[in-house]
Amino acid sequence: MNALNVAEYVQTLGLQARQAAARMARADAATRNRALTRLAALLRHSAAPLAEANGRDLERAAAAGLPAPLQDRLKLTPTVIETVAQGCEQLAAMPDIVGEVTSLRQQPSGIRVGQMRVPIGVFGMVFESRPNVTVEAASLSIKSGNAAILRGGSEAIESNKALARLVQQALREAGLPEDAVQLVQTTDREAVGQLIAMPTYVDLVIPRGGKGLIERISREAKVPVIKHLDGNCHTYVDDPVDLEMAVRVTDNAKTQKYSPCNASEGLLVARGVAPAFLPRMGAVFAAKGVEMRCDAQAKAILQAVPGAQLKDATEQDWYEEYLAPIISIKVVAGVDEAIAHINRYSSHHTDAILTRDHLHAQRFLREVDSASVMVNASTRFADGFEYGLGAEIGISTDKFHARGPVGIEGLTSLKWVVLGQGEVRG
Amino acid sequence: MNALNVAEYVQTLGLQARQAAARMARADAATRNRALTRLAALLRHSAAPLAEANGRDLERAAAAGLPAPLQDRLKLTPTVIETVAQGCEQLAAMPDIVGEVTSLRQQPSGIRVGQMRVPIGVFGMVFESRPNVTVEAASLSIKSGNAAILRGGSEAIESNKALARLVQQALREAGLPEDAVQLVQTTDREAVGQLIAMPTYVDLVIPRGGKGLIERISREAKVPVIKHLDGNCHTYVDDPVDLEMAVRVTDNAKTQKYSPCNASEGLLVARGVAPAFLPRMGAVFAAKGVEMRCDAQAKAILQAVPGAQLKDATEQDWYEEYLAPIISIKVVAGVDEAIAHINRYSSHHTDAILTRDHLHAQRFLREVDSASVMVNASTRFADGFEYGLGAEIGISTDKFHARGPVGIEGLTSLKWVVLGQGEVRG
Repeated sequence: MNALNVAEYVQTLGLQARQAAARMARADAATRNRALTRLAALLRHSAAPLAEANGRDLERAAAAGLPAPLQDRLKLTPTVIETVAQGCEQLAAMPDIVGEVTSLRQQPSGIRVGQMRVPIGVFGMVFESRPNVTVEAASLSIKSGNAAILRGGSEAIESNKALARLVQQALREAGLPEDAVQLVQTTDREAVGQLIAMPTYVDLVIPRGGKGLIERISREAKVPVIKHLDGNCHTYVDDPVDLEMAVRVTDNAKTQKYSPCNASEGLLVARGVAPAFLPRMGAVFAAKGVEMRCDAQAKAILQAVPGAQLKDATEQDWYEEYLAPIISIKVVAGVDEAIAHINRYSSHHTDAILTRDHLHAQRFLREVDSASVMVNASTRFADGFEYGLGAEIGISTDKFHARGPVGIEGLTSLKWVVLGQGEVRG
Repeated sequence: MNALNVAEYVQTLGLQARQAAARMARADAATRNRALTRLAALLRHSAAPLAEANGRDLERAAAAGLPAPLQDRLKLTPTVIETVAQGCEQLAAMPDIVGEVTSLRQQPSGIRVGQMRVPIGVFGMVFESRPNVTVEAASLSIKSGNAAILRGGSEAIESNKALARLVQQALREAGLPEDAVQLVQTTDREAVGQLIAMPTYVDLVIPRGGKGLIERISREAKVPVIKHLDGNCHTYVDDPVDLEMAVRVTDNAKTQKYSPCNASEGLLVARGVAPAFLPRMGAVFAAKGVEMRCDAQAKAILQAVPGAQLKDATEQDWYEEYLAPIISIKVVAGVDEAIAHINRYSSHHTDAILTRDHLHAQRFLREVDSASVMVNASTRFADGFEYGLGAEIGISTDKFHARGPVGIEGLTSLKWVVLGQGEVRG
């Protein structure tokens, strides 16, 4: 396709999605849930064709010399397929929120006023590598009564096409329009430019991938974007604190996995507990090979820890999302300095306080300006499943519309409903 | 000021607002309410200086030959001042929503998860002519714990300065930072360009004024915009309907005032009731000098009405927001065609069905994709005060974050709160 044809093709997808969205908004919950359980069954019974399509992507990836971790993420193993199938069934079992009306309150004029939860309409999703996102996005879209246009990474195109075929079959068999979930079938980059710039057909774009992709889409989009830029999360160890708990939770927040956005990248320690806490914590990090980038006070204490890999932190370190066995460490005077540091350097994703002091906990919860604020828990919990949302289409670091983990509710909006008996305005 | 100085000046306002916002978020409800009641008192006791400042704006407006309706909107009459003073007191009396936490739900991991309502931070407001907006925006900002930067129209600069001085005095006397509400003191257009393009300092922009202003800001803003573009609202008279009620409500929706965005610009009539309804409705419109732009069927019926000003509707008429004694009229087959017409041509602001049929009412509520959907009530009710929001900073025609009338809640966001007892992720 040339650029003009690509633009026309994506516009056609948009028109079809808009038409399908109107039918999805009218469909009842039972029908939408039937499509989800049907999709789960189709996924389980399509091991062979999925493996075949995925194999072609993997061959191409190997031939192109894609790094091993990226090749891993491309794999549609039986475990991955079973996980997404179960995800569809869990969504089907969740309560339906579309059409829900909040309490209708009587106003002085006599009218009753409330709000109804309704689908957004059409959303576009732009994502990289992992083909299971195709099913996750499709199932969330179906559950929330929207239509979706999915644009996956070129390296997973064959797997995504095979999965999208199953999604459309499930929609058809449930009596829903198959255009309710469409995959962009070309890998042309121009398609993304068109998808994010047609407000007539697309109400919302959700990019999921590297920072470069998200920045490009935020800059160029002509429609609202739910964006997740980066996760520079902090754990603050307050005074007083249960030291054993603080070590266990901080360890989990940093080392349980290094790559997730909700891993802690910065550790702040109250001066009063630093001499007791840091040597124990430093020993754990030393044993796990975690490099510590310290301010002068933290370094002075940690130098006594055998095997500790210490570096002097630079100003840039306080901003850094390492996604690696590296952590920045700073000793602070107390909760005030901790809150000020976090509000200055954090990416407003997730920040936690570990404390026994109730007032400090309340102040931290109220004053830290992040999507998730936690007391005595690992930042690794910031996740749609752990929050009980049933599923997650992304984690928003914006303050608008959806903040933090975004589930079905983030794909809906509230419209006002007014019921009268012929009232007029005086 | 030259352009460089204007940019620097507005950045300084931004920095000051950001610092004040942190203090406003920490302030308790009683302190914020005290600032509001103090502001009401100051307004009532400042009749002379306000009249003097307003007089200078009015003189300049007269000298510049501003049209009479615009000169009227500039006037700070004692009635206007009393109204905004009462608005401040009403806001002070309303429940505080900042810091409110929804039910904390226990998750399988042991953590408890809820959401806390928090101020957005800093918002910029760009508005035209009416100086009372200065007080309305300031009081909503104080109530919601935000900081605001206000940029009013150049024609009201003296009035706005006098009002902003009272707002800052009230803040100071309540022990709050006076930078929590700042007025841009220059009328240089460059100031708006800077205000909407500094995401470090401003979290949200709310334009209020003509379509040109709002389109420019939506196009150029680097931060989220709560925008209100236009109000092409519809009243659909269904079959069956109480004819007397339908005439009364439709009359109110169109003629109670012509200029508001929630006045009905389009009338749809079900074929079955058109012969009985349209002659009665047309007589009312004829008596009030309302021009009717009709499709062929409506015109055929209305031609019998003495004194009716009839024109043939063009395709463009279905899109039009007249804000004048003009209404478009179309006969439709029934509720399906009405919903389809509205979803195609409406500006998604407010649309109403007048009906006795319960199923039609339910379908209209669910399927019409507008910020407000009404049954048996005048579209003129779409308003923050009528909805019980206590105040209104604007009406959003977007689907995101805030939809329809925007009150205090629209100036807040929900962040996630997690309470644990040392839980870690497995």
